[in-house]
Amino acid sequence: MDTQELYRRGIATRKEIFGAEAVEKRMGALGEFGAPLQNMINAYAYGDIWSRPGLDRKTRSLIVIGMNAAINRAAEFKVHVNGALNNGCTAEQIREVCLLVALYAGIPAANDAHRIALETFRERGMETL
Amino acid sequence: MDTQELYRRGIATRKEIFGAEAVEKRMGALGEFGAPLQNMINAYAYGDIWSRPGLDRKTRSLIVIGMNAAINRAAEFKVHVNGALNNGCTAEQIREVCLLVALYAGIPAANDAHRIALETFRERGMETL
Amino acid sequence: MDTQELYRRGIATRKEIFGAEAVEKRMGALGEFGAPLQNMINAYAYGDIWSRPGLDRKTRSLIVIGMNAAINRAAEFKVHVNGALNNGCTAEQIREVCLLVALYAGIPAANDAHRIALETFRERGMETL
Amino acid sequence: MDTQELYRRGIATRKEIFGAEAVEKRMGALGEFGAPLQNMINAYAYGDIWSRPGLDRKTRSLIVIGMNAAINRAAEFKVHVNGALNNGCTAEQIREVCLLVALYAGIPAANDAHRIALETFRERGMETL
Amino acid sequence: MDTQELYRRGIATRKEIFGAEAVEKRMGALGEFGAPLQNMINAYAYGDIWSRPGLDRKTRSLIVIGMNAAINRAAEFKVHVNGALNNGCTAEQIREVCLLVALYAGIPAANDAHRIALETFRERGMETL
Amino acid sequence: MDTQELYRRGIATRKEIFGAEAVEKRMGALGEFGAPLQNMINAYAYGDIWSRPGLDRKTRSLIVIGMNAAINRAAEFKVHVNGALNNGCTAEQIREVCLLVALYAGIPAANDAHRIALETFRERGMETL
Repeated sequence: MDTQELYRRGIATRKEIFGAEAVEKRMGALGEFGAPLQNMINAYAYGDIWSRPGLDRKTRSLIVIGMNAAINRAAEFKVHVNGALNNGCTAEQIREVCLLVALYAGIPAANDAHRIALETFRERGMETL
Repeated sequence: MDTQELYRRGIATRKEIFGAEAVEKRMGALGEFGAPLQNMINAYAYGDIWSRPGLDRKTRSLIVIGMNAAINRAAEFKVHVNGALNNGCTAEQIREVCLLVALYAGIPAANDAHRIALETFRERGMETL
Repeated sequence: MDTQELYRRGIATRKEIFGAEAVEKRMGALGEFGAPLQNMINAYAYGDIWSRPGLDRKTRSLIVIGMNAAINRAAEFKVHVNGALNNGCTAEQIREVCLLVALYAGIPAANDAHRIALETFRERGMETL
Repeated sequence: MDTQELYRRGIATRKEIFGAEAVEKRMGALGEFGAPLQNMINAYAYGDIWSRPGLDRKTRSLIVIGMNAAINRAAEFKVHVNGALNNGCTAEQIREVCLLVALYAGIPAANDAHRIALETFRERGMETL
Repeated sequence: MDTQELYRRGIATRKEIFGAEAVEKRMGALGEFGAPLQNMINAYAYGDIWSRPGLDRKTRSLIVIGMNAAINRAAEFKVHVNGALNNGCTAEQIREVCLLVALYAGIPAANDAHRIALETFRERGMETL
Repeated sequence: MDTQELYRRGIATRKEIFGAEAVEKRMGALGEFGAPLQNMINAYAYGDIWSRPGLDRKTRSLIVIGMNAAINRAAEFKVHVNGALNNGCTAEQIREVCLLVALYAGIPAANDAHRIALETFRERGMETL
């Protein structure tokens, strides 16, 4: 497959998950300086790995949320909480991930994850639990 | 609920996931010194969090595999690859998690995860891919 | 022991360390969504582990400060700097921990720890050194 | 060598890399509380390690940027992006480091690194790419 | 560019850096299970990022060594110590990176890095220092 | 103070904590290649930081054990379990640290810590618990 095709497939997938506006905004924020990284994200992350069969998007979202909480990447965690909700995950499922974070990466990681998840729910106007 | 009941429920769940023999062996390895930690694992990790509804065991296994690969805990990763297979996850699904690890925690983490997963499959006599 | 009793013992210990108001505020911040995590914190972290004999609270505080600085959990680090001071640790002792952080987790971790510790001292109106 | 001499050599090196004003400001921010840490930084980090032959300052800067991005230390990363630019590294070279971060520590780490690098370029009034 | 072309360019670069035999062996070790990861490594890591102008291979090697030491990935660190030596880096330069690791990621990380670097030098029959 | 004096004071402290033979062996293992790192360890880590008043050695040992368990540095963790026992810490106190590790850095970190601690106790011929 041509890498431009990979890029196009990836950006389409990415916009389905996060919404076109959010993706444009994120890509624009890093401008020309960020173009090679955006190519990695669009072509390799979304055009290749996220486009593979073998796991549905909801499951991928929950796994990615768990990893980002565990490795302490707050901005990426928040992006993927939004993605998970767009993919049809519920606040309850996201909470279960955050509780697993407490077991495997510790309570401070789980505290941070809960706080950001709840903040994201509120920004979306969700009635949470 | 009484904590002893939590402990019993947890150890039962844990044995369903990993097999009674594997659990006994792991608990025995740390002896009396490890008793308070085993109580945390049995009562709190398996009796409470893993026993919650909201996510099925297969999904929990995949999330936990992803987190342990990302945070570099090889022994726990291997335990949960076995657990995931016992819970009905396939080698292909475990590979998808390991590929997500490459994106979110880097290629060295994914390399380690692939190597340990494959080693585990071979120990179980699986024909993998 | 009943888990509700563990919870009650834990929340009492927690309030002794951090003050009732601070604990209520932290628990309230995550609302109903955070209830299962608060149960882990109150019953398991404070009702069980922190309530064990074998190490006094001052020593536990210093260990926990060191770990949180090393693993880059700023919010939890700050909570436990306050807890350490409430438990009777001095600014000088907290500084010694932050200097050990430089050796074992690197100077950037120690820089972050010093900055947050000093900020916390100032919020409490302490004359520091 | 006397440690005071090491300290003097280090602070001179440090001021060459980051500018006298930036160093004074950083040292002042932690006051008397931070004096032992500043001694470590001035005497040991800059007076010893950074003053060794064997690698030029530009290469050291790029290595240090890569490490701080990988281990998630945003404040130190930003300090060393400024140092790298002062040492003569270009925005393009810094971007290459940030792209290597994506491969070895994951895309979330690279996203954070790109964002902070670009913010730093803008604060310095650089036309970037 | 076609992704197969990217893959071919990457595998050629990779073999220049590590030697054809070492690359074949590493790719073979993960078999069919590892094929998608090897595609990421060959096409994206070496065919794209490592093939970019802007930094020479020696500098890239030193940066990658520093990152892998800091994030505790021993196997990848060792691979890249070999790559760095093949790219023309000296034992002294690699040591300077390991000393920077002590400052930014802590002495335990530097200890591990020194040990593995020295082991690698010995395997290659190098007279070191 | 002269740095050679700092070095001498540090190596004396280090030998008091770990035993002369263990220190000689560790220093010898890295040979000439490791000399600058050994200078950092002897002069800066033990001659300066560990020689400061403000915390006794037993408390320092427990803090350092906690940090190394949390950041996944197995070799250094083991060195300091030995140091802690030499400094008069008990197996029970070391276990309390390992249980705090479970809370703050996760159960996999605590599992690894328990395993290595117990292995160390056995190597010393201790009857543990």
